[in-house]
Amino acid sequence: MSGLSPYRATIDAAWIDYNGHLRDAYYGLVLSYATDDVMDQLGLDAAYRAGTHCTLYTLELHLHFLHEVKASDELTVASLVLEHDRKRIHLGSVFRCARLAEAVATAESMLLHVRQADEPATAAFPDAIAARLQTLQLNPEARAAFGPGSRRMQLVRR
Amino acid sequence: MSGLSPYRATIDAAWIDYNGHLRDAYYGLVLSYATDDVMDQLGLDAAYRAGTHCTLYTLELHLHFLHEVKASDELTVASLVLEHDRKRIHLGSVFRCARLAEAVATAESMLLHVRQADEPATAAFPDAIAARLQTLQLNPEARAAFGPGSRRMQLVRR
Repeated sequence: MSGLSPYRATIDAAWIDYNGHLRDAYYGLVLSYATDDVMDQLGLDAAYRAGTHCTLYTLELHLHFLHEVKASDELTVASLVLEHDRKRIHLGSVFRCARLAEAVATAESMLLHVRQADEPATAAFPDAIAARLQTLQLNPEARAAFGPGSRRMQLVRR
Repeated sequence: MSGLSPYRATIDAAWIDYNGHLRDAYYGLVLSYATDDVMDQLGLDAAYRAGTHCTLYTLELHLHFLHEVKASDELTVASLVLEHDRKRIHLGSVFRCARLAEAVATAESMLLHVRQADEPATAAFPDAIAARLQTLQLNPEARAAFGPGSRRMQLVRR
């Protein structure tokens, strides 16, 4: 079974800030759309959400901004299932643009499967989606190679 | 000397997603605007940037999404200097809305003072700004009370 297809985003001119580069928050917006695309690829799409009242909520997000992105760039986001359990996906994301050999950003997100109601409650993935996640989950070598990843942020004196 | 003033944001209807709540990325956009406001309060404002070609770049960001935010909410972001050195600020942020007693999100950002040129380079803060940061930096008790904070994200089996 193949992996997840990457997501492509064109930079909106309004996303460039006074520093002349992509404003930090818009890496997050591109990531949010890329995650919607992952949901579609997993079968957690609009029809699934309408039929089950189940969806994904983002619990936590850690972004590393590695290179400036300019108005003329097109961003590609590759999504990786770092880990999953019955109701959570720990997703890794690598942002690239054609101009640079290295990744321009990386991200980790923790996503929770939730049934929406007056009081939203966690819910286990259907078997077919759990099986698909199991196929997608990185092997330990690929998992170890992902980075820079989340961590406790602190100033180390230099 | 007083602390930093909080930033207030009104939720744009376009920021609400198919889940009926504020899309994750727009917490990041509100935070980005709140950080611009912190820059203004510190004296790293548009006139400073134009005069010195110095600005702040975001290196890293970790967000915790704690409660859903709805279209009718107004967000307030309180900014805290968790730590700083000669050219970096480790900023903490607490998102609140009037409807809930608890914070709806927290964030940590690592910000780097940069002189922009063909090759941007790190730069030390001017003395007046370094002194202001020193005044603002949280004492150890307040620093320890900030959270949930950044960390290595991982699934813990339950």
